[in-house]
Amino acid sequence: MHRFLDLADFSRDEIVSLLELARRLETHPEPRALAGRILGLVFFNPSLRTLASFQAGMARLGGSSFVVTPGQGTWQLETQLGAIMNGAAAEHVREGLPVLASYCDALGIRAFAEGKDLARDLAESQFGAMAEVIDKPLINLESAMNHPCQSLADWKTMDDLEVPRHAKFVLSWVQHPRALPLAVPSATVHMAAMRGMEVVVLRPDGYALPPAVMAKARAAAAVSGGSVRETSERSDALAGAQVIYAKEWGSTTHYGDAEGDAMLRARLADWCVTPQWFEPADPDCRLMHCLPVRRNVAITDAVLDGPRSIVRHEAYNRMTAQMAVLHRMLSQGA
Amino acid sequence: MHRFLDLADFSRDEIVSLLELARRLETHPEPRALAGRILGLVFFNPSLRTLASFQAGMARLGGSSFVVTPGQGTWQLETQLGAIMNGAAAEHVREGLPVLASYCDALGIRAFAEGKDLARDLAESQFGAMAEVIDKPLINLESAMNHPCQSLADWKTMDDLEVPRHAKFVLSWVQHPRALPLAVPSATVHMAAMRGMEVVVLRPDGYALPPAVMAKARAAAAVSGGSVRETSERSDALAGAQVIYAKEWGSTTHYGDAEGDAMLRARLADWCVTPQWFEPADPDCRLMHCLPVRRNVAITDAVLDGPRSIVRHEAYNRMTAQMAVLHRMLSQGA
Amino acid sequence: MHRFLDLADFSRDEIVSLLELARRLETHPEPRALAGRILGLVFFNPSLRTLASFQAGMARLGGSSFVVTPGQGTWQLETQLGAIMNGAAAEHVREGLPVLASYCDALGIRAFAEGKDLARDLAESQFGAMAEVIDKPLINLESAMNHPCQSLADWKTMDDLEVPRHAKFVLSWVQHPRALPLAVPSATVHMAAMRGMEVVVLRPDGYALPPAVMAKARAAAAVSGGSVRETSERSDALAGAQVIYAKEWGSTTHYGDAEGDAMLRARLADWCVTPQWFEPADPDCRLMHCLPVRRNVAITDAVLDGPRSIVRHEAYNRMTAQMAVLHRMLSQGA
Repeated sequence: MHRFLDLADFSRDEIVSLLELARRLETHPEPRALAGRILGLVFFNPSLRTLASFQAGMARLGGSSFVVTPGQGTWQLETQLGAIMNGAAAEHVREGLPVLASYCDALGIRAFAEGKDLARDLAESQFGAMAEVIDKPLINLESAMNHPCQSLADWKTMDDLEVPRHAKFVLSWVQHPRALPLAVPSATVHMAAMRGMEVVVLRPDGYALPPAVMAKARAAAAVSGGSVRETSERSDALAGAQVIYAKEWGSTTHYGDAEGDAMLRARLADWCVTPQWFEPADPDCRLMHCLPVRRNVAITDAVLDGPRSIVRHEAYNRMTAQMAVLHRMLSQGA
Repeated sequence: MHRFLDLADFSRDEIVSLLELARRLETHPEPRALAGRILGLVFFNPSLRTLASFQAGMARLGGSSFVVTPGQGTWQLETQLGAIMNGAAAEHVREGLPVLASYCDALGIRAFAEGKDLARDLAESQFGAMAEVIDKPLINLESAMNHPCQSLADWKTMDDLEVPRHAKFVLSWVQHPRALPLAVPSATVHMAAMRGMEVVVLRPDGYALPPAVMAKARAAAAVSGGSVRETSERSDALAGAQVIYAKEWGSTTHYGDAEGDAMLRARLADWCVTPQWFEPADPDCRLMHCLPVRRNVAITDAVLDGPRSIVRHEAYNRMTAQMAVLHRMLSQGA
Repeated sequence: MHRFLDLADFSRDEIVSLLELARRLETHPEPRALAGRILGLVFFNPSLRTLASFQAGMARLGGSSFVVTPGQGTWQLETQLGAIMNGAAAEHVREGLPVLASYCDALGIRAFAEGKDLARDLAESQFGAMAEVIDKPLINLESAMNHPCQSLADWKTMDDLEVPRHAKFVLSWVQHPRALPLAVPSATVHMAAMRGMEVVVLRPDGYALPPAVMAKARAAAAVSGGSVRETSERSDALAGAQVIYAKEWGSTTHYGDAEGDAMLRARLADWCVTPQWFEPADPDCRLMHCLPVRRNVAITDAVLDGPRSIVRHEAYNRMTAQMAVLHRMLSQGA
C-alpha cells in the first residue's frame, strides 16, 4: 500500500482484509515489524487522538516518529501555487513537504478544509497540491473532505461489537458553537455505505451534505448491498436505528459564511443527543462520535456516560486500525 | 505499583526500596527493561525538567513516550463536570484522558492548582476528577498540592550526598514576582518529615502552609522519628541548618487574591537567599531548590554558583528517581 | 568528537573524513550504532529541517531524542549573566541547560543572533555563554554567526553532484521582507573557501559581510587553495559561475536598525533569482539555498522548480551529514 488517502481507493474486500490485519496485530503483537522505520507527522491543524495514536502505534510496531506543527515551533507554510511570499509564511509546501518526506519512510498530513469555497474543498485542491509533491508513502490524517483513519477505526469498532452489516446507521447532524468542516460526515456516510449498511443522513434544512458526497456514498452502497437516503425528520430517521453517529458540521447553503451559518444554527439548540433520541431506536442502539465532542451541546452527559456510548472504543481503534495501515505500508514484506 | 500520586500512599520502607532501585539502575543500566512500553505525558502546564527527564528516562529503559499539550497543538480540555461546553474547550477530560490512556501503558499528568479556592485545591478536586476516569497506571507530574516525583528526587539527592536522616532541614519561603502554587512546599515538608528529618518551615506572616499540610507532615514525622515546626524567625530557623530548601509560594491568607498577595510580598524583598543566610547554619549546609529559580530574586548568583548549591544534582535525580517509578510500574516482573 | 560548533574547528581532512562517514552510513546503514543514546534538542528559535532531520537521523542510528522549546510548552530562559530575574523568563540557562545535558548523551542548541549589536553577535556571546555551562557533547544547531550542520550538508551536496573542488561559487544576497541573521552567509562563505572553491560574495551596497567573516574565509581559502572576493556587480560575479548560492541577510551598515534596513532593501526588488541570472553562468550552474525560501521574493518559481535547483538535495543532506556527526560523537568506538 503506497497511499492511504480515501477508503474509496480500495475495494470492500481490501478494507476487510486491512481490518483482519488490525485484529491480528491486536492478538498477535509484532513489536519489531517496523524496526528502523520512521513516520513523519505534519499537523496544519490541532490534534490529540491522531498525534498520540500514530506515535503510540508506530512505537508498538517498533518504529519511531517525528512531529512537525507549522505555525508552532515551525513557521507557517504556504500552500498557494505561484504565491509571492512576502507575508507570514516563510516556506512553501513545495519545498517543506518533500524535504520532510526525504527524512522518513512515510508521511502523514493533516490539513483541514479552507472553508471558503465548497467546490475547491470538494476537489481537495489543497491536499492534492501537497500529495502531488510527495513521493513517499502518504497517509491522510484528515483533509478537507475526508478522514479515512477515522472511518477505518469506526468500521472496526462496529465489527468488534458485532453491529450487523446491514444495520440501520443514522448519521445525525448535531449542534456546535460554530461551523465545522465536512470531512468526517462525508467520510462516515461513505464508510457506512461501503460496509453495506442502511444509511440515513439526518440533518436540518440548510445542512444537507453536498450532492457529490451523497452520490459517492450511493455508489459505494450499490456495490456493497447497502442504501443511502437523507431526511430532516428525526422520528423517521431514528425509528429502529441500530447506530446513531452524531456529528457537527457547517451549513452547506451558507458555506464560508460564518454569520449566515450562525443565524441558522441559533434555532437548532435541540439538536443535542439526549436519552430521548433512543426511544424510537432499536433497543441495542449504539451512540458513535469521532471526538472531540462538546458535552451538553452536541451530546448530553447522560448519553456519553451511559452504556450506549462507544466513543472511547472508536478512539481506541484509531490506534489499532492505523497500525494495520502502517504495517501494510512499511513492513518488509509490504 | 499501579499509581504514583503521593509519597504518603507508600510506607517509608517502600520509598527506601524505590530509591535502592533507582541507584541500582544507575550502576546497572537495564536498557531493554521497558522495551515496547509506552508512556503518555499530558501537560496542562509548562514543563522543562519533567518533559525531558521522563522522555529520557523511558528511552534509557528501552521504552518510548508521547507528549500531549492541551491548548498548544491540542485544543483546550474541559475539567468541570456537567459543563455546557460552548466555550473555548473542545473536549472534556472524561473523553480525552481515557482515550490517551488506551494508547499507552502508563499516563503522566501535570495539572497545577486552579489557585482560586484553597479548600478545592487542598482536596485535589481537579486531579482527582481526572485520575478517576483513568484505568491505567498513573503518575502525578505535579498537581494542585503535590509533586511526588520532585520529592523522590530530593530524597535521593540527600541520600546521595549523605545528608543524615535526622539532619535539620529548613524549608524557607523565598521571593517571586507573583504567587506560585503550594504543590512543592507541601510535598517537600512531608517528604523531609517522612525521611525522618528535623523540619522547620520558615515563612513570613501570611505565608503559613495550610494546617492540613502541616498535620500530614507531622503524622509522617511521628512514624519516622522526625519533627516538624514552623517559624517566621530566620535566625532561629537557620541556626545549625544542614539543608536550606528555598521555595516560592503564594500567601495562604490571600489565596486566589493576586493583589492582596502582591501587597504582602512587596515588603519581602530580603527573602532572597544570600551567602549571609548560611552564617548561622551548619558549615556543610546545602542549598536545595526544585527549579526553575529566578536568580537574584529568590536566590543570588553567589549562592547558586557556589559550592553549597545542589540544585543541578536534584534536577538530575528527577530522571533517576522516575526511572525507578517507571521500572516498578511497567517492567515485566512488576 | 566532543563538540561540533564550527567547521573552522576542524582541518579540511577531518571534514573530508566526516563526509566519507556520511556516505558510508548512506550505503551501509548502522541501525543500532547509537542504541540507547539520547540526543536533547533545544530550540530557542523555530525549526523544521533541523528538528525533523536530527530526530530522524538519531532514529536511523537506533538512538532517540527529546525536544525542548523555551517559550512554547517550556517557559522562557534567561541568557544574561547577573540578571535580576523579575521579568518574563522563569529560568536561567545556567540551570536549565546543564540540567537538560544531564539527561542526555549530547545536546544540540539553536539560538539565533540577538541582532542588536554586531560585535556581540560576532563574538557569539550568547551561544558561548551557553556552551560554557555544558559538559556534554554539544552541537550548534545555528548560532548568531554559524550554522555548521548546514555547511556540512552543503559541502556533501556539492561532492554528491561532483561540483569540482575549485569551481566558481557565488554567494549572492537575495531579497526578503526583513533583515535576517548573518549565520548562514557567514558559514557558507567559509565552507566554500575551506572546500577550495573560487568564492565570490555578491551583494548590494550596505550588505557587505563583516570584515572578520571575510578574513576567516580568506584564511581558510589560503590553506585549501581557494580564493575569496566580494563585489556588488552581478554580471562580474555570475560570469562562469558553477554554483549560485542564494541567501537573504540584513544590512551590516544598519545592523539592528530595522527601519534603516527596510529603506535600503526597498530599492532591491530585483535581487530575486530568475532564469536570466544563469545566462552569464556556466551551462551546468546549480542553484543552492539553505531553505526556508520565500518563492518569488528571493527566488522565482521557474528557478526553484527547474533542473538547476538542488535545494531539496541540500536539505536531505542535513540528515546524512548530521548522522555522521552524531555517529562520530556518540558511537561506542568514538
